[in-house]
Amino acid sequence: MMKLGKKDILGIRDMTPDEIRLILDTAESFLEISTRDIKKVPTLRGKSVINLFYEASTRTRTSFEIAGKRLSADTINISASTSSVVKGETLIDTARNLEAMNPDIIVLRHSAAGAPRLLASLVRQSIINAGDGANEHPSQALLDMMTIREKKGRIDGLKVAIIGDILHSRVARSNIYGLTKMGARVAVAGPATMMPRGIERLGVEAFLKIDDALADADVVMMLRIQLERQQQNIFPSLREYAQHFCLNRRNLQLARPDAIVMHPGPMNRGVEISPDIADDPGCSVILDQVNNGVAVRMALFYLLTGGNDE
Amino acid sequence: MMKLGKKDILGIRDMTPDEIRLILDTAESFLEISTRDIKKVPTLRGKSVINLFYEASTRTRTSFEIAGKRLSADTINISASTSSVVKGETLIDTARNLEAMNPDIIVLRHSAAGAPRLLASLVRQSIINAGDGANEHPSQALLDMMTIREKKGRIDGLKVAIIGDILHSRVARSNIYGLTKMGARVAVAGPATMMPRGIERLGVEAFLKIDDALADADVVMMLRIQLERQQQNIFPSLREYAQHFCLNRRNLQLARPDAIVMHPGPMNRGVEISPDIADDPGCSVILDQVNNGVAVRMALFYLLTGGNDE
Amino acid sequence: MMKLGKKDILGIRDMTPDEIRLILDTAESFLEISTRDIKKVPTLRGKSVINLFYEASTRTRTSFEIAGKRLSADTINISASTSSVVKGETLIDTARNLEAMNPDIIVLRHSAAGAPRLLASLVRQSIINAGDGANEHPSQALLDMMTIREKKGRIDGLKVAIIGDILHSRVARSNIYGLTKMGARVAVAGPATMMPRGIERLGVEAFLKIDDALADADVVMMLRIQLERQQQNIFPSLREYAQHFCLNRRNLQLARPDAIVMHPGPMNRGVEISPDIADDPGCSVILDQVNNGVAVRMALFYLLTGGNDE
Repeated sequence: MMKLGKKDILGIRDMTPDEIRLILDTAESFLEISTRDIKKVPTLRGKSVINLFYEASTRTRTSFEIAGKRLSADTINISASTSSVVKGETLIDTARNLEAMNPDIIVLRHSAAGAPRLLASLVRQSIINAGDGANEHPSQALLDMMTIREKKGRIDGLKVAIIGDILHSRVARSNIYGLTKMGARVAVAGPATMMPRGIERLGVEAFLKIDDALADADVVMMLRIQLERQQQNIFPSLREYAQHFCLNRRNLQLARPDAIVMHPGPMNRGVEISPDIADDPGCSVILDQVNNGVAVRMALFYLLTGGNDE
Repeated sequence: MMKLGKKDILGIRDMTPDEIRLILDTAESFLEISTRDIKKVPTLRGKSVINLFYEASTRTRTSFEIAGKRLSADTINISASTSSVVKGETLIDTARNLEAMNPDIIVLRHSAAGAPRLLASLVRQSIINAGDGANEHPSQALLDMMTIREKKGRIDGLKVAIIGDILHSRVARSNIYGLTKMGARVAVAGPATMMPRGIERLGVEAFLKIDDALADADVVMMLRIQLERQQQNIFPSLREYAQHFCLNRRNLQLARPDAIVMHPGPMNRGVEISPDIADDPGCSVILDQVNNGVAVRMALFYLLTGGNDE
Repeated sequence: MMKLGKKDILGIRDMTPDEIRLILDTAESFLEISTRDIKKVPTLRGKSVINLFYEASTRTRTSFEIAGKRLSADTINISASTSSVVKGETLIDTARNLEAMNPDIIVLRHSAAGAPRLLASLVRQSIINAGDGANEHPSQALLDMMTIREKKGRIDGLKVAIIGDILHSRVARSNIYGLTKMGARVAVAGPATMMPRGIERLGVEAFLKIDDALADADVVMMLRIQLERQQQNIFPSLREYAQHFCLNRRNLQLARPDAIVMHPGPMNRGVEISPDIADDPGCSVILDQVNNGVAVRMALFYLLTGGNDE
């Protein structure tokens, strides 16, 4: 079996298609564990994983925690609100201290783009980027690609539409890197204030109207609108945003009849996605994404600790 | 052995006396584990329990967490302050996301009455109501009944006085349902502003003076005054409340000489209960309640995961 | 093997040199576990440790949590911000409630000096003081002594300089008790407003200039400046503090050439310690302290639960 020749998971940008495939294949093999009556294997017994979250997150932290526990790793949660971050310690000192306690993996979420890469260069433990600013969120893109492959049988040759705040979305960036590497055509759409200049250089088509991106899409990936952006005058009102960029029955008809709908959560129902689409088992794969998220994170833990070494 | 034919523990209102007895009997058999040198059995290995708390609570969350760990379940804590609740996600979406991660049991505390029932109707996991608004707190009532049975040998035929803010107390409601089902006579007392209209329809006697309820009681159950109610003009001052409704040496004499005193905690010493009563090992069984709480929650986990199936 | 004849670890003040040596020897034997591929031994399986933290702390709580998990104990974290402390319950009632849930050890951090001693007198569980006000922080002093012994081969006969806010530092107090008991000469230095009157009675030399304390020191222990003291007019400005009391290349030359530099963390870089000293592997043993901290806490858990009884 191929080995993952990486110490860290910092982003999809620096992954090869073979590495992505190895992770997705491994995750698929772990999917079954979560359906067992006894949902636990001893694979990572005696390993420890620290979830170091400088931004709040239920689903991502819980998903990593459950992934660790299913593999019998010890999991330790540190959140900024209760940490010595309040005492003004630098991220680097915090990391070096954690390193000295000999965990095996540190999962880091941080508001600053590049924070995981900085840590990875300083400590010997494996770092998994659980979202850094507007940069990357690789485990999210991996679970998204796993879900697409599961539902469509392939990624290569598909058209994927990504809709919303492309500028500020680490989910969008990681998916753009991953999907284009895996051979998909990616079209993005969003308000002009949320569209990065020169986004086409990443190999995607960019539109200012949702309809243009949705046309003939096999996969529709909606992004979460961050409500706090409104105060920054980036968009006028939720109502106006929803009028132009909410996925609904009408505009979804522009996509292919068998198109699947994805959302990284948490959803703003009625803003970026209409509730009837979100809850439609005929097209929505949102909960499959969550389920696959645990398996992807188990795969990352397994591969980073040398699980598939001979 | 009888099976608990329920997916969820939502309240005492919809339990039969046989179901209550099954839970109490099972809890009694678990009591011994917590006194062992090695306080752990492998019964729920590979099962996972999520404690989803939208209201802060040391004792209830810790009791559920310890109960899970003693049975070797994996326990994951999510509290509202660090969760995506702050991002405005609906409870339903949070629950569906947790469901997709395949836990076995979700323990929910929420300020809205009915929230656990809503969840239970939507997800396939077992839901345990750990307190929902002013509605029910079934595990509290079960540990209270377990404590009464332990100390008095029976529940049937006893007189139980419940004193305090009957209107807003989920502990009172769950106990009223349970104790009357199990054959106890229940008398409640509290200020007029804290007494629900028509409470007699639940099969209890209601009084506006503590002395009337205490008369000949076998069990005295004091409720916690929620200090925040004062700002809502529901009671004039703590001092005045204490003057009329604090359990003390004088009024406790109205109860039977062998009466036991209970409190769900946390106590406001000197407000609803005088410290010398709270700490009197001759009558106070408050710490037995806490001890029994772990055993009751172990029993609920065990029974809900089919522990006593053939 | 000698037994630790104590129920609790409340401070270094009431420890004998033999007890300190027993703890350090035990900790050394545990050091190796954290370097294994499988960093876990079943020693404390079925024991439970509650970390009850009334003050935030990443490193101390995480260190105790990792120590517990490496010994296979169950660990339960309770922090004041999410606890019923907000409901106004007294520390004593919280402790009695935790006692009734039958944990084996309660690790307590509290802003009030003496809080752990109070608890220890009330509950049957072992209490470990993880820092109480300006009183003691015994596990910190033990890991400091372990680090000194590791690097210098002995404690007896060494000169140790402790620099900073001696008045408010529980780290300083615990180290002064321990180091003098173990035969070291201790010199302290700090601003007059941060120097306790009569400190000499503890058997140390006191100076108002850092250079006087550093002279010929084998060990230099820098204390963290608590930035919030500045508002209390205890020191004029960080800049002025740094000018007089920051450890740097120049004043470190006054110590012995092979002197080691310690800091309990989190560091205020550029205030009490210059970054190039903190990061100099030739003298800084700050990360060794963190590493030894896990081993010391494993030793405390092991000895308090009777691990080395015949």
